[in-house]
Amino acid sequence: MDRFFAPGPNHLFVPGPVNIPDHVIRAMNRNNEDYRAPPIPALTKDLLEDVKKIFKTTTGTPFLIPTTGTGAWESALTNTLSPGDRIVSFLIGQFSLLWIDQQKRLRFNVDVVESEWGQGANLEILAEKIAADRAHTIKAVCIVHNETATGVTNNLAAVRRILDEYRHPALYLVDGVSSICALDFRMDEWGVDVALTGSQKALSLPTGMGIVCASPKALEASKSAQSVRFFFDWNDYLKFYKLGTFWPYTPSVQLLHGMRAALDIIFEEGLDHVIERHSRLGKATRLAVEAWGLKNCTQREEWFSDTVTAVVVPPYIDSTEIVKRAWKRYNLSLGLGLNKVAGKVFRIGHLGHLNDLQLLGCLAGVEMVLKDVGYPVKMGSGVAAASSYLQNTIPLIPSRI
Amino acid sequence: MDRFFAPGPNHLFVPGPVNIPDHVIRAMNRNNEDYRAPPIPALTKDLLEDVKKIFKTTTGTPFLIPTTGTGAWESALTNTLSPGDRIVSFLIGQFSLLWIDQQKRLRFNVDVVESEWGQGANLEILAEKIAADRAHTIKAVCIVHNETATGVTNNLAAVRRILDEYRHPALYLVDGVSSICALDFRMDEWGVDVALTGSQKALSLPTGMGIVCASPKALEASKSAQSVRFFFDWNDYLKFYKLGTFWPYTPSVQLLHGMRAALDIIFEEGLDHVIERHSRLGKATRLAVEAWGLKNCTQREEWFSDTVTAVVVPPYIDSTEIVKRAWKRYNLSLGLGLNKVAGKVFRIGHLGHLNDLQLLGCLAGVEMVLKDVGYPVKMGSGVAAASSYLQNTIPLIPSRI
Amino acid sequence: MDRFFAPGPNHLFVPGPVNIPDHVIRAMNRNNEDYRAPPIPALTKDLLEDVKKIFKTTTGTPFLIPTTGTGAWESALTNTLSPGDRIVSFLIGQFSLLWIDQQKRLRFNVDVVESEWGQGANLEILAEKIAADRAHTIKAVCIVHNETATGVTNNLAAVRRILDEYRHPALYLVDGVSSICALDFRMDEWGVDVALTGSQKALSLPTGMGIVCASPKALEASKSAQSVRFFFDWNDYLKFYKLGTFWPYTPSVQLLHGMRAALDIIFEEGLDHVIERHSRLGKATRLAVEAWGLKNCTQREEWFSDTVTAVVVPPYIDSTEIVKRAWKRYNLSLGLGLNKVAGKVFRIGHLGHLNDLQLLGCLAGVEMVLKDVGYPVKMGSGVAAASSYLQNTIPLIPSRI
Amino acid sequence: MDRFFAPGPNHLFVPGPVNIPDHVIRAMNRNNEDYRAPPIPALTKDLLEDVKKIFKTTTGTPFLIPTTGTGAWESALTNTLSPGDRIVSFLIGQFSLLWIDQQKRLRFNVDVVESEWGQGANLEILAEKIAADRAHTIKAVCIVHNETATGVTNNLAAVRRILDEYRHPALYLVDGVSSICALDFRMDEWGVDVALTGSQKALSLPTGMGIVCASPKALEASKSAQSVRFFFDWNDYLKFYKLGTFWPYTPSVQLLHGMRAALDIIFEEGLDHVIERHSRLGKATRLAVEAWGLKNCTQREEWFSDTVTAVVVPPYIDSTEIVKRAWKRYNLSLGLGLNKVAGKVFRIGHLGHLNDLQLLGCLAGVEMVLKDVGYPVKMGSGVAAASSYLQNTIPLIPSRI
Repeated sequence: MDRFFAPGPNHLFVPGPVNIPDHVIRAMNRNNEDYRAPPIPALTKDLLEDVKKIFKTTTGTPFLIPTTGTGAWESALTNTLSPGDRIVSFLIGQFSLLWIDQQKRLRFNVDVVESEWGQGANLEILAEKIAADRAHTIKAVCIVHNETATGVTNNLAAVRRILDEYRHPALYLVDGVSSICALDFRMDEWGVDVALTGSQKALSLPTGMGIVCASPKALEASKSAQSVRFFFDWNDYLKFYKLGTFWPYTPSVQLLHGMRAALDIIFEEGLDHVIERHSRLGKATRLAVEAWGLKNCTQREEWFSDTVTAVVVPPYIDSTEIVKRAWKRYNLSLGLGLNKVAGKVFRIGHLGHLNDLQLLGCLAGVEMVLKDVGYPVKMGSGVAAASSYLQNTIPLIPSRI
Repeated sequence: MDRFFAPGPNHLFVPGPVNIPDHVIRAMNRNNEDYRAPPIPALTKDLLEDVKKIFKTTTGTPFLIPTTGTGAWESALTNTLSPGDRIVSFLIGQFSLLWIDQQKRLRFNVDVVESEWGQGANLEILAEKIAADRAHTIKAVCIVHNETATGVTNNLAAVRRILDEYRHPALYLVDGVSSICALDFRMDEWGVDVALTGSQKALSLPTGMGIVCASPKALEASKSAQSVRFFFDWNDYLKFYKLGTFWPYTPSVQLLHGMRAALDIIFEEGLDHVIERHSRLGKATRLAVEAWGLKNCTQREEWFSDTVTAVVVPPYIDSTEIVKRAWKRYNLSLGLGLNKVAGKVFRIGHLGHLNDLQLLGCLAGVEMVLKDVGYPVKMGSGVAAASSYLQNTIPLIPSRI
Repeated sequence: MDRFFAPGPNHLFVPGPVNIPDHVIRAMNRNNEDYRAPPIPALTKDLLEDVKKIFKTTTGTPFLIPTTGTGAWESALTNTLSPGDRIVSFLIGQFSLLWIDQQKRLRFNVDVVESEWGQGANLEILAEKIAADRAHTIKAVCIVHNETATGVTNNLAAVRRILDEYRHPALYLVDGVSSICALDFRMDEWGVDVALTGSQKALSLPTGMGIVCASPKALEASKSAQSVRFFFDWNDYLKFYKLGTFWPYTPSVQLLHGMRAALDIIFEEGLDHVIERHSRLGKATRLAVEAWGLKNCTQREEWFSDTVTAVVVPPYIDSTEIVKRAWKRYNLSLGLGLNKVAGKVFRIGHLGHLNDLQLLGCLAGVEMVLKDVGYPVKMGSGVAAASSYLQNTIPLIPSRI
Repeated sequence: MDRFFAPGPNHLFVPGPVNIPDHVIRAMNRNNEDYRAPPIPALTKDLLEDVKKIFKTTTGTPFLIPTTGTGAWESALTNTLSPGDRIVSFLIGQFSLLWIDQQKRLRFNVDVVESEWGQGANLEILAEKIAADRAHTIKAVCIVHNETATGVTNNLAAVRRILDEYRHPALYLVDGVSSICALDFRMDEWGVDVALTGSQKALSLPTGMGIVCASPKALEASKSAQSVRFFFDWNDYLKFYKLGTFWPYTPSVQLLHGMRAALDIIFEEGLDHVIERHSRLGKATRLAVEAWGLKNCTQREEWFSDTVTAVVVPPYIDSTEIVKRAWKRYNLSLGLGLNKVAGKVFRIGHLGHLNDLQLLGCLAGVEMVLKDVGYPVKMGSGVAAASSYLQNTIPLIPSRI
């Protein structure tokens, strides 16, 4: 018996790990297999081909690494850079901060561009730095597509435009952990050199697979990159890709079968429809926040995130109490405010295999918690704002017309 | 791939089959077993003891029959009655109608007491009949505790009082399909002779087990009952109970393990808390219906059902369209209006392993559908009415305090 | 934690319930669904069409009844016969005995043709009775295709020949519980009027579905059959078939999805290959029994069963002890000797989704148990006899060539 | 449908990943959860305490890292050593070779002690090196407890004795990937500083968790170790241990629940009984190999492995063909010969949640394959040798007495 038993299911609205579709849970409900017998290489081959679609790349090379997003970061950095390399990195929230911490501890020379939390990456400063760097001392630009701590989505196309404008050869490394498979992401079109995500985010799998995709330029860079690496070394993967056995060490066959099911679902819905669905859910959430009279942590519309909304609470309320109470009383899991915004914001994750009625249930729950903690919310106001918008925009389910 | 694929889970709000808790799904995720080896009898023995608690009986004898509610009805009737026996039976909706159809086809002499759909059993007429029946020609009174088609809960204690008042020996047979484990039901206290339910209702299991509980008087009656029966014959069960092997034929071991898990969950929450939860969910639903300006099919408060609410739509709307559209557009499963109320009502099932946020998501969905079909609902109105009440009355989850 | 925990999996070799394929367990690992929404009728429609293939019928009408084999028997009898009807029925072991018990208690006039346990149905006596019955007082011939208690397979084609020879119009009812989907069975070719099986046998599902198939002649008979019935009444099914909703009462959606997966597997292997596989496994088991110096309960080769082998133990050994010890020491589940052969035989079930190495593991286990109980078995002898035969006859797995 | 479908289950006898108990598969059959809410820290706390038991340590600090065995190696090395550090490492087969490759690429100064494949670590040379190293230039001794490629178990106690004899302070790092939880391993008693295993080995979980345990001396060393690291850095774990939230990044909640179930099973059986069971299965396998007239790759009895047996085939047979055919014809998964012994040996893994009848089925299968490829095996000979031994030594299952 579950020690923290509650009637009914948990309502999981942290911005990852997200809800796993039943179809995927079923696909993973299985024994181990010999990963050297033909089925696993055959399965892997198809996955490597199909996973490129969620990066919108045809030229990239994907790696399905038994690790987390943190490991995927390490894989991106150590395979393409050498200790002491100058890299430009944007600090705009807790996850960009952690990546920068990693970049520093992995001994890169990190040129940090900081913004207030709630703002996007300062691309003007990037432009200045790139413009000034005629000697091409900047080896890479590292950016988090969607800062999960503040609900800020950066403009990746604009970064590419800056690099192109100055014909700067820096590598372009993107953390797409809370964006890929949910937000508009175009690896080839935007000239991203390494993009990465984690299985437990918009792909809606359990944690345990870091998915990294490298451009030809990134692969080329990996040949001379001097960072010490073994577990994360792409070369070992590439060697086994050539052999057709694909795995330098043991993969989780459950995650591979789960990924097959997850991609099948995404392709069934259509990646663009998946992205539109996230857009609708994001907008609906923001309408609810507005109706409640609360502020979005994200300071400008251009940065609004369609996968996570960080809601600022009034100074007399502790947002941590909201998250605790939501779980204790309503079995609703919301995201805490982290670091600088701890106690000040709570977060609603709205990514992955999620539909309108789930979100509306969550919003109704948030209203109840807000009332619990003394905020004068008008009950039903957020739900009404969200459902009015959703009702207007939801299509019939194609398979059911 | 699911032919009717939709993003996100289905929201299941028919009044059965209901949502299965994950804990139960896990428990059932298993291979077959030899039901003659020691584990299954040991498991069965405990289940037979524990299942009595959900009937609130200590003197009853339960039977876990591999069948549905319809089979459970047949078990109740054929084991206690003989062809031609006069029985009083109440027709108040589709399910009582079906039971009466069965009673007739099984060749009993059915004295039908009919009420308008939306009303409860007419107990005044029962009282008259019982009073008049000095010769005790009435062998049984058959009543549906909760008429699932109309959301009407009958007063079982009152039936007992009538029988007692006239010292009438008729057997008292109760269909508790959509009540037991969700509504207040007291087999011993109310002198019920046979009570029955189905696994897919408030017990929150898959379909496939008819659960029948017989009083000592019912067991006694079974010795002389002349109805032809074999599969449903209690005697075969009783023979194997004595042997300690328990099963006259093969049970579903998955359902037995599932039932263990389901009972564990119910006892963990506490049966009385389960019933209170249903009471809160029922009340919240009715508040929403009222806020929408719609009528409850149930005509008087005394009959309000805490497991299902049948909502009457205005004459210019076809309730079937509401149910179809809910499924096609929002992946929300509501109950159709049946027979006399087809097209006129739709039903919201709120029974089983369900919590507040699930129900609020459903209510938000109903609002969207109502708007879709042209009913001038105020968005958020029902959710607000429900959530205001729920927020006031929900306790902290005991395991999480 | 499992109260009867043992290291490693249980080795399930009772003649039902049998091992469920992982593919099927996965398919059943799911929540309930509204059986009135489009997916369940669509699924059911396909199942009803496809299940006919395992009966080898194109003209039959199948019923998927939420019951066990015992209920399927009752469905076959009560839908086609009237109380007092004379039927010929063969008593050759425990399961035919139980069916005859049912036939009697359902008030038919049963003309029992008994054979020694271990022998097949006495068709000479049948021929005499049929020949003598010029008045066509015999309304049905009831036969168990494969007597699970003794491992005896009857010759169904010969029964049809006898009926045809005398142009006798008796209905031909066949219990195919431990045969259909494993042994050669041809409903149309052999003119079987009602055939039936249970989900937990060769179809390799959990218990809970009785599968009954009726010929046009049987359906015609059902119109005038006077047996009282409701739950098992085909007419209710036929009414819902016409409506396209298919279900007179709630089915187990888990079993329907499981059946889809089970049929997919059977068709993938090919029904004829499935039957050949059972033939090989049956033969291998008999070779092992011979090598051990033990007798097959089945007295003649013509009756050898390819789904279950009943092994006769020497008089100084109690076969019940073998079954108990197999389970207690080796986690091996064998079938007990039943009734007349209790203590005298133990049974090895070799049906369903089973392969060579599983059977050889079982045979090795039986050898160990035989040694445990003092039988002077030569270790490895049975395994060697079986594996020599199997190695010679096993094909490469088609999908792996 | 599985593209490589075969009737019946796969028989998984590679030396990892191994068979997952049903109890564990069930426990992992679940949705994601918020790992920052109370249940996951509570679960983790218990796991960290309980996992120490399988290392037989009370003073060690465990880390449950979302990675594979290769990552666990990297964690052990980079947290305790600095680039250029001299380490002694034994090359005795493919897995020790891979570890040495990692050690070199991570820029340690590796002093390789090579043995012929099939022999254990050369401890005489170790003794010489340790004796000679008065300056304590050797910073660590790295050894694979059980070389999975050759089925060789090294004497860990002897290594400790050598270090103690010379009072040498070198760290003692042990790869226990195919030993811990299956072979006798005593971290504290043998003074092991870092021990590690992978979830998919004797713990019988899916792949995805590297389990590393550090002695106080190893933790002390981690404070000054200069190897660049981030993902694998113990300090981040230790920081979150202190906070009581335990996770520096997202764990797989499925694997945590699975580990709980796996440990419960191991403790239910008793770790010492688990080890004895492996001892019996190992011995039985070796008796079969002997009976077949084949040679064990392991050259001396002192090195015999109880988790994997590498079987040498005659020169006229290609062992790769045996492995391929086993899978193609019998759905039996055996281990390939790797690198130097490719084509020369095949491997039988006999570790994890495995019982006697499973192994005997495997051995029967190996006999059939041997015959297929032209080796003059006496059918049943290996099974008989194994089963005679097993029958003599198997205890009654305690829960079933």
